[in-house]
Amino acid sequence: MRLTTEQRFWNLLKEQSSYEEAIGLMAWDMRTKAPQKGMENRSEVLGVLAQKVHEIQTSEELKSYIDQLKKSSHDNVLTAALSEVEETYKRTTKIPTALYREFVTLQSKSEFVWAEAKQNNDFKSFQPYLEELVRYNRQFAEYWGYDEHIYDALLHNYEPGLTVSQLDQVFPKVRRSLTHLLEEIKKAPGQPDPSVLKGHFPKELQKQFSEEILKKMGYDFQAGRLDETIHPFAIGLNINDVRVTTKYDEKDFRTAVFGTIHEGGHALYEQNIDSKLAFTPLATGTSMGIHESQSLFWENFISRSRSFWETHYPLFLKHAPDRFRQVALDDFFRAINEVKPSFIRIEADELTYPLHIMIRYELEKALIQGEIEVRHLPELWNEKMEQYLGIVPPTDSEGVLQDIHWSGGDFGYFPSYALGYMYAAQIEHAMKQHINIDQAIRAGDYYQIKQWLSTNIHQYGKMKKPLDILKDVTGEGLNPEYLISYLTTKYKGIYQF
Amino acid sequence: MRLTTEQRFWNLLKEQSSYEEAIGLMAWDMRTKAPQKGMENRSEVLGVLAQKVHEIQTSEELKSYIDQLKKSSHDNVLTAALSEVEETYKRTTKIPTALYREFVTLQSKSEFVWAEAKQNNDFKSFQPYLEELVRYNRQFAEYWGYDEHIYDALLHNYEPGLTVSQLDQVFPKVRRSLTHLLEEIKKAPGQPDPSVLKGHFPKELQKQFSEEILKKMGYDFQAGRLDETIHPFAIGLNINDVRVTTKYDEKDFRTAVFGTIHEGGHALYEQNIDSKLAFTPLATGTSMGIHESQSLFWENFISRSRSFWETHYPLFLKHAPDRFRQVALDDFFRAINEVKPSFIRIEADELTYPLHIMIRYELEKALIQGEIEVRHLPELWNEKMEQYLGIVPPTDSEGVLQDIHWSGGDFGYFPSYALGYMYAAQIEHAMKQHINIDQAIRAGDYYQIKQWLSTNIHQYGKMKKPLDILKDVTGEGLNPEYLISYLTTKYKGIYQF
Repeated sequence: MRLTTEQRFWNLLKEQSSYEEAIGLMAWDMRTKAPQKGMENRSEVLGVLAQKVHEIQTSEELKSYIDQLKKSSHDNVLTAALSEVEETYKRTTKIPTALYREFVTLQSKSEFVWAEAKQNNDFKSFQPYLEELVRYNRQFAEYWGYDEHIYDALLHNYEPGLTVSQLDQVFPKVRRSLTHLLEEIKKAPGQPDPSVLKGHFPKELQKQFSEEILKKMGYDFQAGRLDETIHPFAIGLNINDVRVTTKYDEKDFRTAVFGTIHEGGHALYEQNIDSKLAFTPLATGTSMGIHESQSLFWENFISRSRSFWETHYPLFLKHAPDRFRQVALDDFFRAINEVKPSFIRIEADELTYPLHIMIRYELEKALIQGEIEVRHLPELWNEKMEQYLGIVPPTDSEGVLQDIHWSGGDFGYFPSYALGYMYAAQIEHAMKQHINIDQAIRAGDYYQIKQWLSTNIHQYGKMKKPLDILKDVTGEGLNPEYLISYLTTKYKGIYQF
Repeated sequence: MRLTTEQRFWNLLKEQSSYEEAIGLMAWDMRTKAPQKGMENRSEVLGVLAQKVHEIQTSEELKSYIDQLKKSSHDNVLTAALSEVEETYKRTTKIPTALYREFVTLQSKSEFVWAEAKQNNDFKSFQPYLEELVRYNRQFAEYWGYDEHIYDALLHNYEPGLTVSQLDQVFPKVRRSLTHLLEEIKKAPGQPDPSVLKGHFPKELQKQFSEEILKKMGYDFQAGRLDETIHPFAIGLNINDVRVTTKYDEKDFRTAVFGTIHEGGHALYEQNIDSKLAFTPLATGTSMGIHESQSLFWENFISRSRSFWETHYPLFLKHAPDRFRQVALDDFFRAINEVKPSFIRIEADELTYPLHIMIRYELEKALIQGEIEVRHLPELWNEKMEQYLGIVPPTDSEGVLQDIHWSGGDFGYFPSYALGYMYAAQIEHAMKQHINIDQAIRAGDYYQIKQWLSTNIHQYGKMKKPLDILKDVTGEGLNPEYLISYLTTKYKGIYQF
């Protein structure tokens, strides 16, 4: 029986998707379970499989299917898949193979050098690698092309549709509001007492509570699992196998509890993609920013809300060590929402977090535009920290060296974190027009909320572009006012100013 | 830079080996961790990857490398690899693709039907599938070819070099000795009291003891891990990532303890293959029988010995529930070596175990030779159980339906279990000429034993054929006398006859 061109097209994508599931499982395994000594062999296997994906993505075979099918496609899944793989084909084939290979080699070396440099607080040793990584990214951006800013070409990898000119309108507005709020908070009368959260909290108990909350959110444990790791992540191996990982700090339960809920938000997205997209490149979140909107929606808007703790504090206390029974709900709630400028992005509170992102965005944009030089980064980093957060990291390890992204050559990624936060605020506002969120939280019943997100966002996978999702859900484009308003109201309440 | 033919050959094998590592990890994951709902998608991915392996194994590209390289190879690894892949190429391409595809489809259906049939004690529903599976195997055997017996062609898949004429010399001898021993044991004065082993044994404690014994054996936890599963297995993903799984029965610690040691024996084999064989099809055990000799050596010859328990009983008691402290070492040792005919192969003691294998061997050989018919299997099974073990299973679920092998179309596999046992006895005898095994066990120091096995067996992977290993290690071919002598001496001591 002869296969049609369309069947051949889907079979090729299924082959690619099979390699990707294998790569995903290997990545999960390496970060949760795999024995140390097997890593070297495993890395080579990953290299072989990644090469197979790359071969398919850039193959003449794929190109010929695209050319044959796109003229006549009337099916919306087929049309979207063709558009998605054609875009990848074009962008990937624009980069000369030899150049890309050099970059991949540089990447893995750089990550290693960065890890050492971070450990030894030695920016100088990482500097030449970072200079090279910037140089490659500038070259790639030129190959890919852009209308206005060179940085737009990189941003496109993570948040297609967004541009520097949009970010430069929005980010300064947010920054001004947040730094102003931060000033108010510093001198406000209602300072929380974070010491009420201290105390040993056994891992097993944190795990039980985390699992219960994941279940309440609607995370399907028959289509996923929760494991321990060092740097938490969620990963969709397929729509029915979406795994969450978390980290247990027995001295601070917040790492696991809010971390699990955050990753759970990512996982709900991947678990609720329409199954008709299985084995296609559309079966994943549409962008980093929209993905982050889902994790931050659950982490901040749900699980850091007063209603959430009014409802679930008894459940928390059931799993918490005895001493927490002495802590009044109000003190607990205010303590978990303490705002305090700190050095490390991933440990930042929800108010200062976007400021950390803006520092990175401004610096990497300037690097890519050639306005600043890598060797000046530590100094510039510290200046911006002083300016936006009022503190200066004592070492580069706690400053410019803290994040892995640049060492992997990822420029244009950071804005997604802040965009996701703004999207989340916009989405929450839109959801409120249809659902009484507060009432749902108080009932401890998140079904309606989960369904609304699935219907309006999750099910589409990559069928819709990020700004189309935003427009369809909220009726407007990127608008930072919702985030500013949410943070202002919330923290005026907590800090009483 | 142009690659040489040899480099291209190794690269192709590396690609195959990468798929195999991915398949291995997926199989491990499905049997230990993977969420239920993801299985369907995962099975499809496994199908795609298995197809890629099959494509390489039967590719014209591979064939041309073999033809070019085999004339001039002077390197023993290259020569062995060429011979191995050529053999696979020849056997695989002898089967018409369409026929093989039909068989693969039948296999997966049959496993499902068998599982249902076993659950419902309904052999009739499985019968037509088994008839088909036998028919395909007979066809395959004809395509592969054989000198004497059609069954030899199947045996070759698991134990290359062994033939029906050898087995038919050896097995009846073993059977007669064992049935005779069994008669003696039944009427012997020294009957053990297995009730001393009863009692709740928490999983966590079993796990701790199992881990300690694995470490003592020399199993490298930095190149492996121990997980829980339903049907225990060991699997080598690569030489530095060899995983053991076990099953904890809180009512019977023997399942986990002896099971873990058994799988640990398999794992030591895979962990100690020469690293120069990495990414080639030589980087695994040379045959099912030699593999089984390694697991059974550790399980029976080491961990069911008196010296082992004289040495490790204190360690066991450290992890055992309090009540075991009342059990005298001698009573304990005799109880764990109780001989008692039973229905289920995998629960059989070390003396009756080979009799279970012979029943299967005789029946499957007769099936393949067309001497008996599938529909008579339950009756014939029960007759042989009565004859060899003196008991008749009350249901087919506990009889002819108990094992998964035939449902997967695996004929010719069962003899390996008995062969492995005989090999192990021969190997132990040979080892004794160089090492004071008893002294080593009493010192609780297995380093010398592990090293001897690695040097003489493990390191070679598939570089040597099973009978060459046996000859080089023991100086002779398959000889059942060592097993008979070991069992006779041991059980005369325990049962005092």
